[in-house]
Amino acid sequence: MTNESLFHYTLHLADTALVMGHRLSEWIGHAPQLEIEMALANQGLDFIGQARSLYQYAAEVEGKARTEDDLAYLRDVWDFKNTLLTELPNGDFGATIARNLYYSLFMEAFFQQLQKSTDSQLAAIAEKSVKEMTYHARYSSEWTIRLGDGTEESRIRMQKGIEDMWPFTGEMFVPAAYEQALIQAGVAVDVAALHAAWKQRVQEVLDEATLEMPADCWMQEGGKTGRHSEHLGFLLAEMQFLQRAYPGATW
Amino acid sequence: MTNESLFHYTLHLADTALVMGHRLSEWIGHAPQLEIEMALANQGLDFIGQARSLYQYAAEVEGKARTEDDLAYLRDVWDFKNTLLTELPNGDFGATIARNLYYSLFMEAFFQQLQKSTDSQLAAIAEKSVKEMTYHARYSSEWTIRLGDGTEESRIRMQKGIEDMWPFTGEMFVPAAYEQALIQAGVAVDVAALHAAWKQRVQEVLDEATLEMPADCWMQEGGKTGRHSEHLGFLLAEMQFLQRAYPGATW
Repeated sequence: MTNESLFHYTLHLADTALVMGHRLSEWIGHAPQLEIEMALANQGLDFIGQARSLYQYAAEVEGKARTEDDLAYLRDVWDFKNTLLTELPNGDFGATIARNLYYSLFMEAFFQQLQKSTDSQLAAIAEKSVKEMTYHARYSSEWTIRLGDGTEESRIRMQKGIEDMWPFTGEMFVPAAYEQALIQAGVAVDVAALHAAWKQRVQEVLDEATLEMPADCWMQEGGKTGRHSEHLGFLLAEMQFLQRAYPGATW
Repeated sequence: MTNESLFHYTLHLADTALVMGHRLSEWIGHAPQLEIEMALANQGLDFIGQARSLYQYAAEVEGKARTEDDLAYLRDVWDFKNTLLTELPNGDFGATIARNLYYSLFMEAFFQQLQKSTDSQLAAIAEKSVKEMTYHARYSSEWTIRLGDGTEESRIRMQKGIEDMWPFTGEMFVPAAYEQALIQAGVAVDVAALHAAWKQRVQEVLDEATLEMPADCWMQEGGKTGRHSEHLGFLLAEMQFLQRAYPGATW
């Protein structure tokens, strides 16, 4: 039972990282400057690295014959547990930066807590990942400020990204059923407890960017328990094509 | 040898119809009016019907154990022989109409000729399909005229669609290696011979639409022999997902 919760929780973290990594990889060849392209691609690789460690651990917890590749490439939409925020299409550069801002400020605090997990494997993955998220948070904060406090056009588009991604942030702070017991046991992070400090940090960045904090609104959820937007199906079809078309392919 | 050419030729016709059908199906849920949505979906179904007949015949010609589904869903980009015109993203409604115009005026004349093929199966498929293409040609001609001779905005967008699709029309009139011998044998249509009359009909529609005929330019080709744009890979990943993820699925 606890093992099943731990499996689902680890998968949730892995899926979320993998889908974020895939979205960032979509910028390759499309970023506004070469330097930005390199930065987004590198951040995407950080996520895919996190996903690998997490899938490997999930496979170990599950204790069946499935490998990290099986978990990443041979599961369908309803089995994925990533948050909805991560599967939204990239939109323009402002929207991507807005998502990165929300996500990285959350994950930095999240991994800081997960380092104290009673599960030593999760704690080790968190310790490695927290530094990456600190860099991501700085990068997206700086771009939010530069675009928000930039030209009239960049300000309008950055504000729009901030608004559009907002309704998908609430889900990060609502524990799924499989999370509850793990939080009690000190394995999982008490995400609800991170909400106020996260909002405060977002507010500070937006203030410096001369942008407006979105109003409170109804928050979308479902991704953590497998209820996804139409976007995830298209993403998986593309991401999983190689393994689906050439099962067991190696190189 | 002749059988192999006939197989490739039939596949080329099948792939072209299937990819056109898939592109039109993408309009479902996105067309500007319900009536247009129904019309585009029905035209898409016509193409998928043509593709089925052609794949069934191709499978018969090949004489191996492959079925129509195998040919449609289990071949990769380099095996597809559709023309590049059909795999281009839909663009806006004007661009879709422009492609439909170019394609249906060509295919109407093409199927008229293919009815006289010495291959009785291809002749029978052509006889059924030619009526569909007459309707498609009328539909896209009417919309080209309505949008071209409409508002300033609709005119600009229709002209843009006409221009953007133009460099991909030349390939329809250039026979691939596998077509040559079949043309000599009276099996395949001599596509080069259709070019002047096609251009004349396009010119007439554009004149009535107060649109300008694009200037002669360098024409893209490669699709008929398996050299495709990046767009086809994404299209196949999406179109083939179900069969790839659930091999042999039935319902």
